[in-house]
Amino acid sequence: MSRDPDPRGDAMGYVRSHASLVERRLDEMIPSGEINAGSGSGSAPRTIVDAMRYSLFSGGKRLRPVMCVAAWEAVGAGGGRAAALDVACAIEMIHTYSLIHDDLPCMDDDDFRRGKPTTHQVFGEAVAVLVGDALLTLGFEVIARAAARARGVGRAVMRRRLLEVVIEVASAAGPSGMVGGQVIDIGMTAGKAADEATIERMNVMKTARLFSASVSAGAMVAGASGAEISALRAFARDFGLGFQIADDISDAAGERDSVKASYVRALGIEGARRVALESIDRAVAHLDYFGERVWALRGIAGLTAAKVAEGARER
Amino acid sequence: MSRDPDPRGDAMGYVRSHASLVERRLDEMIPSGEINAGSGSGSAPRTIVDAMRYSLFSGGKRLRPVMCVAAWEAVGAGGGRAAALDVACAIEMIHTYSLIHDDLPCMDDDDFRRGKPTTHQVFGEAVAVLVGDALLTLGFEVIARAAARARGVGRAVMRRRLLEVVIEVASAAGPSGMVGGQVIDIGMTAGKAADEATIERMNVMKTARLFSASVSAGAMVAGASGAEISALRAFARDFGLGFQIADDISDAAGERDSVKASYVRALGIEGARRVALESIDRAVAHLDYFGERVWALRGIAGLTAAKVAEGARER
Repeated sequence: MSRDPDPRGDAMGYVRSHASLVERRLDEMIPSGEINAGSGSGSAPRTIVDAMRYSLFSGGKRLRPVMCVAAWEAVGAGGGRAAALDVACAIEMIHTYSLIHDDLPCMDDDDFRRGKPTTHQVFGEAVAVLVGDALLTLGFEVIARAAARARGVGRAVMRRRLLEVVIEVASAAGPSGMVGGQVIDIGMTAGKAADEATIERMNVMKTARLFSASVSAGAMVAGASGAEISALRAFARDFGLGFQIADDISDAAGERDSVKASYVRALGIEGARRVALESIDRAVAHLDYFGERVWALRGIAGLTAAKVAEGARER
Repeated sequence: MSRDPDPRGDAMGYVRSHASLVERRLDEMIPSGEINAGSGSGSAPRTIVDAMRYSLFSGGKRLRPVMCVAAWEAVGAGGGRAAALDVACAIEMIHTYSLIHDDLPCMDDDDFRRGKPTTHQVFGEAVAVLVGDALLTLGFEVIARAAARARGVGRAVMRRRLLEVVIEVASAAGPSGMVGGQVIDIGMTAGKAADEATIERMNVMKTARLFSASVSAGAMVAGASGAEISALRAFARDFGLGFQIADDISDAAGERDSVKASYVRALGIEGARRVALESIDRAVAHLDYFGERVWALRGIAGLTAAKVAEGARER
């Protein structure tokens, strides 16, 4: 448990090592070739397995699942690492589905993501819609099956926690969360001017709610208190807002997405950077509740703040 | 509890009255206007609520949720009618999402469904993708929240049953089930000749698995035995196969979908009718396990068999 003296270096190492745990588990869950449904009731066609793996293993930073596990550790690591890791993988599946659908020609119409052709470019539009649907569905199956991986608590306790996780994640991803935010985004892209309050609402729904569910889900697996869960949700809401703005700043630097409504468009790069850094500061303040136990989440927030600051220096 | 002497008339009345219970509950779950996320964390944009309601209330027969409730009644109606009805509504949401995505231009490219413009025709393609995503997500949230509506059993017991329902429904709807079947369907539409075994596999995955999960989910809420659940799954698998062929026969009669792989294309109308009726006969035989308790499911199978026979007479 020795710590790097630079907390940012520390956080980077934490993200890398935990991301590789997530990737190994995802690889076990969706092996190459046809997969079994678990209950012996059939197997998934090769095409959809290939497309799921292509989309899941395309260089994502695994920030949401890593933060899920970090929150689980921060509140005492109860219920078993295997259960926490499975919930984290489910969240990564749901995040990946949202990227696949966002990239579709009828949505953002992106040909590349992280330098690789998007899923619909490789597998066609129909399979891209379906593989997104598959990952969303599988995400909920994985959460429900995590009850079998509980350690140190009774199955009944873990089942209660996991049903809460299903509600938390579904509510963050559904019409009042991520999907609703995307609908607002589409509406704004269609040319209307947007005020700051609408942009904030969109960013909270589209991005911050799933970050929020990531940390609260990890905490729920561990059996966190209501106060702990609330503090983590508040942290992740403000973190997610800052993260989305950092992303918009990168996009603007790359001259992408200039037609999209964002803080960058509303306030300029400098204004957006200020809002992002304020948001991350607010996020970190919510972590005071926990003391030293949340060093990894604090470090991840620091990395995002550094990205915002450096992005500005590069210009 | 008096019964119509004609069991088919009886079943029709049963379907109608239970379908209206399902519709009333769906209407409560997704009221007009902005909806709350439940946890006070936000509300869904008006567009997506309108599109969810348009898609959900477009004249569906509600066969899957009605069969879910019928199975729940057949195995003793434990756990509370409210919980069973909510699970039934979740399945209707998931069925509706699958229709919205199937109709998309990149999939079947259908402009009309049940005589009304399809969701993407009314709301645009992007919103149609997103409203499908929203209904799928909401379906799992509704199942998880049904624990709060348990009656006559402890919460812990109901939570165990509902996590099983999440696994059952997700596995039926996911890559090894409905979505996987749709991928096979798309692959076959692209011109390849298909043998009977592949067509059967596709129909089981695309259609029968969700029927199967509908009845097993209802039975799980009631606390059915493993043997009861197996018998119901076997019934619904064969029923679903017959139902899909009946649908293909109607399509062929309307000269739609002639390029799609189906029993009609492989065996002709008469051959397909024979396979459908045999399949429904096999389905009903699985119900012998239950005796008189399953009269409603037996009646619904009879209605579908009658549709197949009449469809043939019309030609």
